[in-house]
Amino acid sequence: MRETFRFPLRVYYEDTDAAGVVYYANYLRFMERTRTEWLGSLGFDLATFEGVHGVAFVVHRVEIDYRLPARLGDRLDATLALIELHRARMVALQQVWRGEHLLTDARVAVACINRATFRPARIPPALHSRLEALA
Amino acid sequence: MRETFRFPLRVYYEDTDAAGVVYYANYLRFMERTRTEWLGSLGFDLATFEGVHGVAFVVHRVEIDYRLPARLGDRLDATLALIELHRARMVALQQVWRGEHLLTDARVAVACINRATFRPARIPPALHSRLEALA
Amino acid sequence: MRETFRFPLRVYYEDTDAAGVVYYANYLRFMERTRTEWLGSLGFDLATFEGVHGVAFVVHRVEIDYRLPARLGDRLDATLALIELHRARMVALQQVWRGEHLLTDARVAVACINRATFRPARIPPALHSRLEALA
Amino acid sequence: MRETFRFPLRVYYEDTDAAGVVYYANYLRFMERTRTEWLGSLGFDLATFEGVHGVAFVVHRVEIDYRLPARLGDRLDATLALIELHRARMVALQQVWRGEHLLTDARVAVACINRATFRPARIPPALHSRLEALA
Repeated sequence: MRETFRFPLRVYYEDTDAAGVVYYANYLRFMERTRTEWLGSLGFDLATFEGVHGVAFVVHRVEIDYRLPARLGDRLDATLALIELHRARMVALQQVWRGEHLLTDARVAVACINRATFRPARIPPALHSRLEALA
Repeated sequence: MRETFRFPLRVYYEDTDAAGVVYYANYLRFMERTRTEWLGSLGFDLATFEGVHGVAFVVHRVEIDYRLPARLGDRLDATLALIELHRARMVALQQVWRGEHLLTDARVAVACINRATFRPARIPPALHSRLEALA
Repeated sequence: MRETFRFPLRVYYEDTDAAGVVYYANYLRFMERTRTEWLGSLGFDLATFEGVHGVAFVVHRVEIDYRLPARLGDRLDATLALIELHRARMVALQQVWRGEHLLTDARVAVACINRATFRPARIPPALHSRLEALA
Repeated sequence: MRETFRFPLRVYYEDTDAAGVVYYANYLRFMERTRTEWLGSLGFDLATFEGVHGVAFVVHRVEIDYRLPARLGDRLDATLALIELHRARMVALQQVWRGEHLLTDARVAVACINRATFRPARIPPALHSRLEALA
């Protein structure tokens, strides 16, 4: 069974809009933070990838469903599970929960690219092996 | 043939990230601006919907493909075409272009909700008729 | 001697811009998070103020100096010390540090307002007493 | 008499927060857009400064007063007047207006820096002369 990473979040004024709920684009910010913390939990760091390997990870597709709104002061959990792993890209299932309630649900496809050319690049082997062990 | 609405955008520092390109969540900000301006071009205004009809429009699903990056100073065009219209929701095709190059491509599903209950509500008739004429 | 509240932060892509550093407006987001967490640490909650007391806190003046840039992946500490307390407003010294290095330094004046009228209102007595004990 | 540059803005959901008004940090985003458009109106471009001169402009101090709130859908004018010009830095008075009402009022000190070292650098002579003619 697949491991799920969990990262706690809190909703501040900066995250909300005049409708009184978290602004829809801001869930993508929450999800990026979660991917960064997930990589960190596996022992990897974005700055190192850029500096040492000359690669970066860019999102190339998102499918996101907004099911229930989050509000100012809410304490949320963002979760991430790797659902596809390829040579140069991966797909993560990323969700945002308030307790038992699923608020937002996304499939996020991330590509590894060469920082200089923005062309696809292989995921660095040390990371790829670590991710294979998760899937 | 379907009408396409076009709205010009410029990329400022606020839109970019340390990878030197527009941050992925910010395309959703561009697309919300475009929906607001599109409604305005049809003679409708979000504040009026809230005040007079007690309804608001919320995004409930986005599918977005990131094809090419935009950079600081780029002049972009955001386009919108209505592709589905229902009683309480609609789907728009929203794209971001730099000249002839398609950078980002999204299907955005928007629901009409009752502001007080956050439950689905009929799109106000005056707007619904105006949108039917477009489709 | 004045108590200083400390809140840890991490720099994500969302916080940075194409110059490779944290975007200047985003320090104000960091500082708002810090004020919220500081009030929480004192046992107070923004949602309760709005619901029970009908008041909100709004920033009415900021003086901020940007001394050194923060970069992607940096682990920062945001600090807050209350330096002035009045009936309807207060001033906080808010700083952002990376280890021993002071990056940003602000005086933030916050007013208590009536949520309905946006006019000045007294700081609720329970909070005012708690803040007096700090000063 | 000093020339004032004027740039129109509209308030979208992205700019607001759960208090129903423009979030305080977002005025700094409005002001950065205005500085970019102002430089553009003088015939200068940030990308060129970075590419050709190896310099960038960074804000090193802001004093900002928030006088009246802006709300969803508001049409605003951002203004800019240069009030100090030095070899390596300048100060602009930047305001945000809704019709006759001054909402926000800032003094923004901007430094010219070497992009590689982040150390102060002279403002490129062509720009400096153009700015002297304004002051």
